[in-house]
Amino acid sequence: MATVLTHNAARLAGLVHPLPREVACTLVILGGAGDLSHKKLLPALYNLTLDGALGPKFAILGFSLEPLDDEKYRQFARDGIESFSRRALTEAGWDKFAPLLHFLSGSFTETADYQKLKQRLGDIESETGTGGNRVFYFAVPPQFIERCSAGLTQAGLIGQADGNRGFTRVVIEKPIGHDLASAAEINNQLSKYFAENQVFRIDHYLGKETVENLMVLRFANSIFEPIWTSRFVDHVQITVAEQEGVGTRAAYYDKAGALRDMVQSHLLQVLCMIAMEAPRSTHPDAVRDAKLDVLLSLRPFEPADVGKSVVRGQYEQGLVNGEKVAAYRAEEHIPSDSNTETFVALKCYIENWRWAGVPFYLRTGKRMTNRASEIAIQFKRVPRILYNSRPAPPLPANVLSIRIQPDEGLSLNIVGKQPGSPLRLGPVKVDFHSSIASPEAYETLLRDVITGDQTLFMRRDTVEAAWRFIQNILDSWEVSGSEPFLYPAGSSGPTEAAVMIARDGRTWRNL
Amino acid sequence: MATVLTHNAARLAGLVHPLPREVACTLVILGGAGDLSHKKLLPALYNLTLDGALGPKFAILGFSLEPLDDEKYRQFARDGIESFSRRALTEAGWDKFAPLLHFLSGSFTETADYQKLKQRLGDIESETGTGGNRVFYFAVPPQFIERCSAGLTQAGLIGQADGNRGFTRVVIEKPIGHDLASAAEINNQLSKYFAENQVFRIDHYLGKETVENLMVLRFANSIFEPIWTSRFVDHVQITVAEQEGVGTRAAYYDKAGALRDMVQSHLLQVLCMIAMEAPRSTHPDAVRDAKLDVLLSLRPFEPADVGKSVVRGQYEQGLVNGEKVAAYRAEEHIPSDSNTETFVALKCYIENWRWAGVPFYLRTGKRMTNRASEIAIQFKRVPRILYNSRPAPPLPANVLSIRIQPDEGLSLNIVGKQPGSPLRLGPVKVDFHSSIASPEAYETLLRDVITGDQTLFMRRDTVEAAWRFIQNILDSWEVSGSEPFLYPAGSSGPTEAAVMIARDGRTWRNL
Repeated sequence: MATVLTHNAARLAGLVHPLPREVACTLVILGGAGDLSHKKLLPALYNLTLDGALGPKFAILGFSLEPLDDEKYRQFARDGIESFSRRALTEAGWDKFAPLLHFLSGSFTETADYQKLKQRLGDIESETGTGGNRVFYFAVPPQFIERCSAGLTQAGLIGQADGNRGFTRVVIEKPIGHDLASAAEINNQLSKYFAENQVFRIDHYLGKETVENLMVLRFANSIFEPIWTSRFVDHVQITVAEQEGVGTRAAYYDKAGALRDMVQSHLLQVLCMIAMEAPRSTHPDAVRDAKLDVLLSLRPFEPADVGKSVVRGQYEQGLVNGEKVAAYRAEEHIPSDSNTETFVALKCYIENWRWAGVPFYLRTGKRMTNRASEIAIQFKRVPRILYNSRPAPPLPANVLSIRIQPDEGLSLNIVGKQPGSPLRLGPVKVDFHSSIASPEAYETLLRDVITGDQTLFMRRDTVEAAWRFIQNILDSWEVSGSEPFLYPAGSSGPTEAAVMIARDGRTWRNL
Repeated sequence: MATVLTHNAARLAGLVHPLPREVACTLVILGGAGDLSHKKLLPALYNLTLDGALGPKFAILGFSLEPLDDEKYRQFARDGIESFSRRALTEAGWDKFAPLLHFLSGSFTETADYQKLKQRLGDIESETGTGGNRVFYFAVPPQFIERCSAGLTQAGLIGQADGNRGFTRVVIEKPIGHDLASAAEINNQLSKYFAENQVFRIDHYLGKETVENLMVLRFANSIFEPIWTSRFVDHVQITVAEQEGVGTRAAYYDKAGALRDMVQSHLLQVLCMIAMEAPRSTHPDAVRDAKLDVLLSLRPFEPADVGKSVVRGQYEQGLVNGEKVAAYRAEEHIPSDSNTETFVALKCYIENWRWAGVPFYLRTGKRMTNRASEIAIQFKRVPRILYNSRPAPPLPANVLSIRIQPDEGLSLNIVGKQPGSPLRLGPVKVDFHSSIASPEAYETLLRDVITGDQTLFMRRDTVEAAWRFIQNILDSWEVSGSEPFLYPAGSSGPTEAAVMIARDGRTWRNL
């Protein structure tokens, strides 16, 4: 239970970043009438409006093939907000938000339509007084990224990186490629049109709240950093477990699999936040440098390691929350002989001074018994002396666990005395988590794009370092032709994952 | 909030000490019809009976001047239990407890009465089958200690220290002396009649639960010990604040004062528990050796230090909980020119490798604004970089506070992120304390005497080391003739105490 000491907070709270100025700009959503816009972007923008985070000189322009006009687009947005917004739609809020919305129907592949876009954008800019600041949100399939970039550039819509006459930023959704080569290819394309400081590669999993919570926990407190090393940490577990199956993403997912979809991006990002050295400052590039250092320090997998330290799984039919669900191979649009993994568990090492010898166990899967995203720092056990000399099994180790989903919070397992005589020891769990609703990830991400904070966005070198680490596993699987181990839906994954960690004398945490 | 994980507890809980066997013995209470027996000892023994902690071969024999018999003594006990017992008296419990009670009327100064005691004890022992095991509880004023010891010895009631034909133990209540010389004198007297392992010097403040909680916290967890040093700890505060005035203890208290009454015993004991090195085992003498080491490492006060590092205070009239209360000098039985201190604050240093340079601030007082007994470990602040670079004042330090009264619990102040953007930091307080009723201190202490566990009892060398440290202050006050600073009842003590710690750039914690 956390008690934010409000009566002291005013005095003690440090305002670390000054409040971002309200930034004038136009947000152009390429794919503005698509699913992502409907469910995420427009509801997030609505909430930012309620917060007063979008200034009076702000406009939204949807751009895509659908035959909508401003009026119909507003209805499309309203529907999305009514269904998906964090806060309920109110008429007062809507009256504030609706006038920001504009729409232009056009094709990403038609040069002429980019000219129309230029004209419409010019009209909005002069009406709204955005000073030429533009954010282009690429809510489009990856194969359109280059076409859109070229179209915008050819139409003269991309400003200089120095932002002299207003800034231009582009937001790219993951996935960035499906392997190292294709990621490098996308990045090469982007670099033809944009400077790196104009590119915001979004990762919708690791929200700003989580990243900031992790950094504050580590670097605004003095008691954690001294013990955050191989001397005191036994191992780290990072888990992202989903109950959902492949759902509507079958076509994409069957080509990707859990390693690409979750490990390459989300789990390695979390690993970086936990393992990084203190950055030299909170400047976005200082933080991203510190994260990159972790990726570059990962011990690369040799082909022989992959068999021992990486377990891939695929779900069979089973029960999730008491309901029977189909096997992966029986899902719609999934080939009945698919070997795509829906589960990965792996053990890796960070070869630097701080973490030498400390295994990091990562696992993620679909159709697991519970939904849980958690980081657990398990500290070394106390020596087998004093209170730990006689009991069998020995006293439990201290564990600091950081939950990301379904709620955010911290939990510290310590050994305490159970009242009364004789002396009995047992684990005491200390929970502290915020009960205040956090903003949706897209709200903070959009705000960061608008204010130009790249901290949460993946830099090119980071994306490629992550792919380089993953690529060895992909290659090894390709060469060996190994098939995933099957696990029943609603379980904790294949037995082989439990065996892998058990060989080290450890166990996975309960989901 | 503490969640004792009961479903895991059975598996994980370590049974550190084996359950003490039920011990056959007779507990003889010298002063058995006095106040301490009425309010504390008999109710505690009743609760131990309810717990099944006293075996079938157990008897209680009250011995004092009052003209009671067994029947009347049982009524006296019943009254005490009804008024003061932790758990309500039940007829079933009473039926179990009443037969244990016996009484013999006699004088501590009459040799013949010790012969009667011998005879009565012999009768009880053969009826009950206690095997000659005896505990003599000296619930008598200090001046009777030697007379009682001699009387018991002359009557042949004291067994050998080796316990060959049953054990004999004596329990001595504090205070042990009123200065170093008188404490040594009492200890010399005791040593004429008893071996050190037969003497249980009781300290009714620091209950077993607290001591064990502190030791378990420190030595059954791996995350605290690494930061429990001068490298990471800024300072330690130990506070025992009472709201009560001198009450019915005026005659004793005016000769003692807060330094003798509270610092010499309680606060220094707490200091030892917090500061001691890990003992070589949980054996009582190993723990007492570790505590003694702390006392012997205290930097002795030079006369010049006393004026700077020790503040004595005395309460004036004021408001406590909205009620007007009298000044100390206006209390019944207190001389109107008394200079006895009712408040002490002092700063001391432990000159060993672990604590070099870390000040320990101790304070205790009567008629304070709140009742609170607390230990606070304040860790060093994070460096003025990253999140701590800009705010003024700087981020608050991490504090681990251990409450002893009114409830027992731990509290950890960490800096957390307050949800939402922009990044705001503030203190987050994490509480975890047991909600299960702890046994009364006297229950565990009596159980320990019966089972022979001396951990919580003060050894001669420890008592005298504590007096030696205190004696320099007493001497300095005597020489300088300094008067206490006055403070209003219901305050936090004299301003001078705040000034003392402010000179170090620190502040006392709020009461």
